[in-house]
Amino acid sequence: VLPYRPLKVTMSCNQSYWTSINADIEAHLKQAITVREPLPVFEPMHHLTFSAPRSTAPALCVAACELVGGHRDQALPAASALHLMHAASFTHRHLPLTESCRPKSTIQHAYGPNMELLIGDALVPSGLELLAKSNDPTQNNSNRILRVMVEITRAIGSQGMIYGQYYEVELCQSDNKGSSHIGEIERLSEKYEGALHACAAACGAILGRGNEEEIEKMRRYGLYIGKIQGLMNRIGSNDKDLKVLVDGLRNLATKELTGFNEAKVEAISSSFESNLIYA
Amino acid sequence: VLPYRPLKVTMSCNQSYWTSINADIEAHLKQAITVREPLPVFEPMHHLTFSAPRSTAPALCVAACELVGGHRDQALPAASALHLMHAASFTHRHLPLTESCRPKSTIQHAYGPNMELLIGDALVPSGLELLAKSNDPTQNNSNRILRVMVEITRAIGSQGMIYGQYYEVELCQSDNKGSSHIGEIERLSEKYEGALHACAAACGAILGRGNEEEIEKMRRYGLYIGKIQGLMNRIGSNDKDLKVLVDGLRNLATKELTGFNEAKVEAISSSFESNLIYA
Repeated sequence: VLPYRPLKVTMSCNQSYWTSINADIEAHLKQAITVREPLPVFEPMHHLTFSAPRSTAPALCVAACELVGGHRDQALPAASALHLMHAASFTHRHLPLTESCRPKSTIQHAYGPNMELLIGDALVPSGLELLAKSNDPTQNNSNRILRVMVEITRAIGSQGMIYGQYYEVELCQSDNKGSSHIGEIERLSEKYEGALHACAAACGAILGRGNEEEIEKMRRYGLYIGKIQGLMNRIGSNDKDLKVLVDGLRNLATKELTGFNEAKVEAISSSFESNLIYA
Repeated sequence: VLPYRPLKVTMSCNQSYWTSINADIEAHLKQAITVREPLPVFEPMHHLTFSAPRSTAPALCVAACELVGGHRDQALPAASALHLMHAASFTHRHLPLTESCRPKSTIQHAYGPNMELLIGDALVPSGLELLAKSNDPTQNNSNRILRVMVEITRAIGSQGMIYGQYYEVELCQSDNKGSSHIGEIERLSEKYEGALHACAAACGAILGRGNEEEIEKMRRYGLYIGKIQGLMNRIGSNDKDLKVLVDGLRNLATKELTGFNEAKVEAISSSFESNLIYA
């Protein structure tokens, strides 16, 4: 068995499609999240927005939009919102709470816990405001934006990422040695990274005016990609069961892309799957 | 100077207008926030939704909708969302965080801090999902719902309630004796209760299809009412400066109601102002 390469959020520079999408999301975020009054609130919000690790979900949202024939601009507000949801969740997951059973975080806390709690709370409405403001009555897209709003609020809520985080806390309380069964890690990855990526891909397809079949194909593609990422980020060892599971998920993901424009499928596959290969 | 009666969230039962609005909001919330799978997440979410103290903002949202000629049903999803925002904020404000300078809360914590952090994080998307789902393409109200979404996300965000909470933490760090100057309490009340009530009243007017002038009148009315509540809830003493300030704000609030239907103005005044009198 070859050693596997854990997924890195920063991917190689020759992935031009991936790179160009992320540059556009970054530019959109920089325009939206500025340091303004009140400075003691916006300065840490700006810091946490841009210092949080990047998830691949926002880029997947944009890629799904383009895959169904939409224009990149249609997906940038939702993609930016998804980054802010991810940054909020990251910030709150690393709060030093009493009774927390999580291993102490090794990340640098630039602000105290009161501030990190507040800013996490500020990032979610800020992202959803960004999305709601992108409504343009002349474009007749308000129903699609509201549908995306329901998708995102569900994905980050009690049946999605919040459930994943609950499950994460439960797992680490029942087993502090990090030796959870792979099935439990799979379930956690499905609820957390899976829910976020499934939502991201479905939202991209909705905003790009894909049909219902395309939206559901993208939703499943995102779910598989997200689960793979969750598994590979959490299981840091050369694990045979993991390889079998990931290979199976990768095959399922690839199948969902059949029927779409081949050049675009190739661009997406090289961006989201090339790093998921053991090698 | 007569002793003043601090505002109680539970108002007297003979206020039938107020009572009927709150009963409808409660019924709407009960239908939306049910105990379902995953139970370990939805059970505490249900508990915190219904055990959090009530704010008057949701009822004000419904009253403003009816004042501009709208139907109560048009405002119930937004009013319910506002309660969930308030419950989320209440839950996070009482988290036992390291370095917290707030006086230890006397409220009963039914769940541990990890769970209260998570559920606070779940209540916000849950409320906004409720609002987004209320979109009915046949009613042609999606642009109004998105406008309300921007209003709510702003009010709970970095320039509204989050700023109020930041300011609250700052105040208690600079002065642990609770003897802050009334001007500081006024500023805090403006950002926290003021922002929430101004938003609630403006949202009600938007959803009730009020014109721009009516929306701005309602926004100012809500701001004054919210500020009065914040001041009276925070300054628990017979304070002459407070009386002058509250009387001034009450006069300003009353002025904003001129020009509206007199019977409705009477219903609103008796609901929101009768409890703000020193007596």
